[in-house]
Amino acid sequence: MAKRVGKYSVQLEKQINMVGGAAIVGKLEKEGPLGEYFDYALEDDLWNEDSWEKAETKMFYEATRMAVKNSGLMAEDIQLMMGGDLLNQLIAAGFAARQMDFPFLGLYGACSTMAESLIVGSMAIDAGFAQRVACCVTSHFSTAERQYRTPLELGTQRTPTAQRTVTGAGASVLAGEGIGPRIKSCTIGKVIDYGVKDANNMGAAMAPAAADTIFNYLTDFDVAPDSFDAIVTGDLGIYGSNLMKEMLAEKGYDLRGVARDCGIEIFSQDQDPHMGGSGCACGATVLNGFLLKKLRARELRRILFVATGALLSPVSTLQGESIPSVAHAVCIEMED
Amino acid sequence: MAKRVGKYSVQLEKQINMVGGAAIVGKLEKEGPLGEYFDYALEDDLWNEDSWEKAETKMFYEATRMAVKNSGLMAEDIQLMMGGDLLNQLIAAGFAARQMDFPFLGLYGACSTMAESLIVGSMAIDAGFAQRVACCVTSHFSTAERQYRTPLELGTQRTPTAQRTVTGAGASVLAGEGIGPRIKSCTIGKVIDYGVKDANNMGAAMAPAAADTIFNYLTDFDVAPDSFDAIVTGDLGIYGSNLMKEMLAEKGYDLRGVARDCGIEIFSQDQDPHMGGSGCACGATVLNGFLLKKLRARELRRILFVATGALLSPVSTLQGESIPSVAHAVCIEMED
Repeated sequence: MAKRVGKYSVQLEKQINMVGGAAIVGKLEKEGPLGEYFDYALEDDLWNEDSWEKAETKMFYEATRMAVKNSGLMAEDIQLMMGGDLLNQLIAAGFAARQMDFPFLGLYGACSTMAESLIVGSMAIDAGFAQRVACCVTSHFSTAERQYRTPLELGTQRTPTAQRTVTGAGASVLAGEGIGPRIKSCTIGKVIDYGVKDANNMGAAMAPAAADTIFNYLTDFDVAPDSFDAIVTGDLGIYGSNLMKEMLAEKGYDLRGVARDCGIEIFSQDQDPHMGGSGCACGATVLNGFLLKKLRARELRRILFVATGALLSPVSTLQGESIPSVAHAVCIEMED
Repeated sequence: MAKRVGKYSVQLEKQINMVGGAAIVGKLEKEGPLGEYFDYALEDDLWNEDSWEKAETKMFYEATRMAVKNSGLMAEDIQLMMGGDLLNQLIAAGFAARQMDFPFLGLYGACSTMAESLIVGSMAIDAGFAQRVACCVTSHFSTAERQYRTPLELGTQRTPTAQRTVTGAGASVLAGEGIGPRIKSCTIGKVIDYGVKDANNMGAAMAPAAADTIFNYLTDFDVAPDSFDAIVTGDLGIYGSNLMKEMLAEKGYDLRGVARDCGIEIFSQDQDPHMGGSGCACGATVLNGFLLKKLRARELRRILFVATGALLSPVSTLQGESIPSVAHAVCIEMED
C-alpha cells in the first residue's frame, strides 16, 4: 500500500514499472531534435483517414497497441485502460476504446493527462484493481487549432507567446511485475489560477501550477531539486518555463541545470514553434519516446515528470474568464 | 487490497464508506417525485450568476461543500477531489476546483462519471493515496442544450425518444473510516458501440453498454439479479431501460422487479420529460439525494448503481459517427 507523505504527495511501496511505452508523432515532430526516438511518424495529418479527428483516434489506438507490443505483452494481458485527449468529450480516446476489449476510464487534465494517467494507473495497480494497465493520451495540431482557436484555412498569425500543439500519441504500460523504470512517488496537483486571460500564452497560465506542484513535491519529501537528473515539465514552453523557475527561485529552490521542458525540446527554433510545443501529446511522446529510452539506457536515473494542463475552454475564454491550471508530478526511477 | 474477480470486476477488501453525500437540483427536478430528498434546489437556472456555466460551476462547488459538511468533516479533512461534468474541457469541475485547496483529478465518462468517480475514489483509498475523497459531478439543462443540441432560444421540438438533461450536482464523500453505506465491489465498463447514430436516442445507444456491464458483474460474481434490492441505472430512460432488460433477458437474466432507472424516477410523465432525465447529475443526484437516504434508513440494503455514459460529441455526430457508450457498476451495501 502507498504511503501519504506531507500534505500532497504519495510514496508508492509496491513495485510499479513502466514495462513498455510507445510514441507516435507527426511529420514536424519527427523532423525535430528528438525525431530519432519516436516509434512511428505520420507522413501527413490525416494518416489515411477522412478527418483529422479520425487520425487522432487512430494515433491513440496504435500507440496503445505498440506500447503493449513493446512491453512483450498481448492485448489480452491488459486489464485496464485509461487516458484522454484534448477534444470535446474525449472523442479520440472514447472512439479508440470502442475498438479494444479493455475496461476503460476516461481522464481529463488537459495537457497534464499523461501524468494523471500514470498516477491513476499506479493507484489501480497498488489497490489490486489491475496488474497491467495501459495509459494513453493524444493530441493533434489540426484538431486542436480548429477546436480551440480558428479554422486552419484562415491562416491566422500566431502571437509571439503561442505554442504549437504536438501531433502525436504517447502510451505507457504499467505493471506490478516485469522490469523497467519504476514509478516511485507522485504529487497530485491543485487547480491554480493567477488570473492570466490570454489563451495564446498558456505557458504563463500554467507556470504557477507547475511551480506549486514541484514545490509541494520537494517540500513534502524534503529533497533538493538536484536529487533528480531532470525535472521535466510537459509543455510550459520557453516563457512558461522561465516563469516557473523564477517562481521557485523566489521560494528558495534553484532549478537551473535540472529543469527541462518537453515543449522546448521537441521542436528546434528553426521549426518556428514560437515558445515550443504543447498539447497532451507533447509530454506524452517525449516521455514515452525519448525519456523512457534514456532511463532504460541509464543515461537518466531519476526524473520528476511534471505534466501541466490549462483547464480553459473556448466558452470560458469568450465569457472573459481567466485560465485555471493544474500540474501533476510523477517520480520515475531506473534502478540497477 | 482489492481482489480481481472474473475478467472485469473487483471486490474491495478494505472498508470504504460513503460517509456523506449531497444533491443540489434545479426547479423542475425539485418539483418531481423525488423532490423531497434533495438537499437544495435552485429557484432559477442562473442561481445569481451571469451565465449558466457559472451556475453549473457553483452547483459543483456547493454540492461538494455540502457533502463534506453532511459527512461531519471539515474541508481540510478532504485529501483528494475528483469528478467532472458534460461541458467541453470540464470547465464546471475545473473552475470549481480552483476555489478549493484539494488535489484534483478530472474524470470524463459522460453520464457515467459519478460511478467512475466512486470507483477511482475507492481505488485511491484502497491504495492509500487518500483517506477521505470527495467525488462530484454536475450537469445543467441549459448549458447542455446549447452545447450538444441547439440554442434554447430556437425553441426546437424534442423528438419522442429524447431525454431531458438534469440540472443539478451530486457529491459523495468516501472514507476509509466512519460509517455509512459501504462500497463493496465494482465492474469497470468497456466502450460498446452498437451503431446507434441518433443523438436524440441516447437510451438506445447506452443500453448495450449497461447490459454488458451488468452481465459482467453478475457472471463475474456469479450472483442473481435479485441478490440486489435494486439494480439502478443512471439515465437509460424508458426506452433504453426496456432495451437493456430485453438484452439481459436474452442472456438469461430477468431484471424485472429489480431494475430501476434514475432517469425514469426523477421526473413524472406530467412534467413532459419524454423518455426521462439524463445528464451526469441524473444518476448523481438520485444516488446522493434519494438512494443514500434509503440505504441509511435500511429501506434498501444492497444496490448496484450502474451509471451509463454516451461518449458522443457534436463533432462526431456531424461527422456521421455512431455513439460509443460505457457503463460502470458499483455495488453499495448498508450493513447492520
